[in-house]
Amino acid sequence: MNSLRGACVIGQSGGPTAVINSSALGAIQAALQDERITRVLGAAHGIEGVLNERLYDMSCEDAAELERMKHTPASALGSCRYKLPDWRDDCTDYERLLTVFRKFGVRYFFYNGGNDSMDTCSKVSRFLADAGYECRVIGIPKTIDNDLAGTDHCPGYGSAAKFIATSCMEIAQDLQVYDQGRVTIVEIMGRHAGWLTGAAALASYMGSGPDLIYLPETVFVLERFLEDVERVYQLRGKCMVAVSEGIRDAQGRFIADAGTGGCDVFGHVQLGGLSSVLADIVKTQLKLKVRGMELSLLQRCASHIASRTDMEEAYWAGQTAVEAAVAGHTDKMVTFQRDTNQGGYVCRTGLADLASVANVEKLVPREWINVAGNGVHQELIDYIMPLIQGEIAMEREHSLPRFAKLRKVLAQPLDS
Amino acid sequence: MNSLRGACVIGQSGGPTAVINSSALGAIQAALQDERITRVLGAAHGIEGVLNERLYDMSCEDAAELERMKHTPASALGSCRYKLPDWRDDCTDYERLLTVFRKFGVRYFFYNGGNDSMDTCSKVSRFLADAGYECRVIGIPKTIDNDLAGTDHCPGYGSAAKFIATSCMEIAQDLQVYDQGRVTIVEIMGRHAGWLTGAAALASYMGSGPDLIYLPETVFVLERFLEDVERVYQLRGKCMVAVSEGIRDAQGRFIADAGTGGCDVFGHVQLGGLSSVLADIVKTQLKLKVRGMELSLLQRCASHIASRTDMEEAYWAGQTAVEAAVAGHTDKMVTFQRDTNQGGYVCRTGLADLASVANVEKLVPREWINVAGNGVHQELIDYIMPLIQGEIAMEREHSLPRFAKLRKVLAQPLDS
Repeated sequence: MNSLRGACVIGQSGGPTAVINSSALGAIQAALQDERITRVLGAAHGIEGVLNERLYDMSCEDAAELERMKHTPASALGSCRYKLPDWRDDCTDYERLLTVFRKFGVRYFFYNGGNDSMDTCSKVSRFLADAGYECRVIGIPKTIDNDLAGTDHCPGYGSAAKFIATSCMEIAQDLQVYDQGRVTIVEIMGRHAGWLTGAAALASYMGSGPDLIYLPETVFVLERFLEDVERVYQLRGKCMVAVSEGIRDAQGRFIADAGTGGCDVFGHVQLGGLSSVLADIVKTQLKLKVRGMELSLLQRCASHIASRTDMEEAYWAGQTAVEAAVAGHTDKMVTFQRDTNQGGYVCRTGLADLASVANVEKLVPREWINVAGNGVHQELIDYIMPLIQGEIAMEREHSLPRFAKLRKVLAQPLDS
Repeated sequence: MNSLRGACVIGQSGGPTAVINSSALGAIQAALQDERITRVLGAAHGIEGVLNERLYDMSCEDAAELERMKHTPASALGSCRYKLPDWRDDCTDYERLLTVFRKFGVRYFFYNGGNDSMDTCSKVSRFLADAGYECRVIGIPKTIDNDLAGTDHCPGYGSAAKFIATSCMEIAQDLQVYDQGRVTIVEIMGRHAGWLTGAAALASYMGSGPDLIYLPETVFVLERFLEDVERVYQLRGKCMVAVSEGIRDAQGRFIADAGTGGCDVFGHVQLGGLSSVLADIVKTQLKLKVRGMELSLLQRCASHIASRTDMEEAYWAGQTAVEAAVAGHTDKMVTFQRDTNQGGYVCRTGLADLASVANVEKLVPREWINVAGNGVHQELIDYIMPLIQGEIAMEREHSLPRFAKLRKVLAQPLDS
């Protein structure tokens, strides 16, 4: 079973991160070196590239450019948010996929993404098994949200957390400058899980951060929020708030829903504009000067301040996926386990069943959030801190990042 | 004349930057070392600290903490936006200032800020001269906006430009990820001058940046903007726009004025929300998916990605102010002159009359902007590039910035 020979496809899916390309590189380089893997194909825009037969031949890439993927943010191969239907309802996509896999001799499929991508990965895996087509399918975790189940943490999270913590420290310094008070509301990504917003607490821990932190794991009560802000303002003459875009009221309605209200293809409500909504409420109700701001896309793409730990672990996750597959594993996602027995932080890899992680969201434990729901406990800080450690040595040109420039040569089918 | 002995006051004013503390440190360290300067006082919140007699004794600070000011963003001594009246209209503040200067034996006044602060500095200088009180007054330039006259560029600008260029490169990478098109509008600071927004062109020059750039130096015609966006979108399937918060229509009205419309104490219209205004127009008129975002406060406080050139020149500006004052100069602002005769970039310091720079705004030359007003020429890129060069070696703790923690010991008057 270990000697399965064939091509592999590596796909990137969902929202990009600062280090998702490091995972792709880990998988690509491991696959290029393994003699059981006959061809290394990169899918253009994830599963869409498979369905459209747009697969890049990664062996055509310049080795030095490939290496630069380690420090290039966003998905170098392209991503997608395409949701595969259940194959029992509609098997068109699956049969197309099988046709393409046969045409290119694909026996290994690596898919790098978050909850939704693990769902895709799991469906592909089960369909191929059902169809009797031997193909090893391994998911590589990725998400700045850090909400994937079955793993201690996700590649992508550490770098986003480091950007958020550093930015909040810098913003807090900026806010101390004037004598006149102001309320500043910083909106942070994270639809249902508060891991990213929780990273703002690292800034406070370092002595320069938000006074109040609201995670989506607790019910957001507007009256209590206004009381909190007023109390801090009376005490300090100013107030800095970090708040998750995904906070909801007791009825489960997003506070940001005054915004667009549109939905993405997965049925997620499109968020944004929460900081303006809250700023407006503070201004009207408390009659205070207020500024709302978002950290926006930089949370997932600020590779210049990526965590070295995160970047290295991301690479390792990709590499582990290939090693696991050639060793005979399939229908799994690579996981990280944290070992703190020796006092320090040690990360080990493992494997979890794809079906057990697909579509499951891992939230911040309630006991890591304070009772009032406006701050976090030391446990969360201790959890995040090891993940942001280390600086990267990015290649620069004119003191600006030098990103990977891939040739993206389309691969031809076996019989062409 | 050169042997004037007395205390000095160093004040920080206006919006902070990533390197304003480096200038303060340059002045503080030069002053602490000069025997003609008997005491080094830091004004709490600029001119307000002078008027309120809140002056810190900088000799009480730990030398290592002082040194950390080099990498600490925002004004460590505190800033203000206090506007001094004309002393011929109301001399209350000036007489109070003179009283405080006499009480503390102040004979040197260094004020670090932008156009408005140079106005303050100039007024103080002329009043003291009129009153026959010998005091040497030197302005130290500072502004991320880079709009101060009489100097090639301003400390603070290079670091903001580097953050903007790097962020735009990273965001452009992120925008390439999906197959589906989207228009992304990045709002950049700069009320009247386009230096900051122009820095986004460095990203495009590096191959990963905005398709369209709108500076406030040209009239913003909404119909032409929509045509530009549609043309790029048709061609590329997506469109990234960098736009100054200060763009105005042919009648001189701020496009962002759909926002708050409030004014600050200097009579500047309070801007913000332009990216939402434009995003809404693109969505409605062109029926395209669109995202508006602001780079926000991070433009002036992201010290983790400060330009080493900027940080060193900022320090040098502070040092030069003290050297010029003890050498007998007064009523001047420190300036930078660029020498490119030797092929490379060499920066030299000079002095300009305060009255000649106060309240004057230096704009991006029209000929550095393309005829269509939706992009910039190589001259602007060549101008900015040397200013963003070099990385800083910031002290870190837990991989997060270690900012200066000043003791801020209030100084006592001479006779106490």
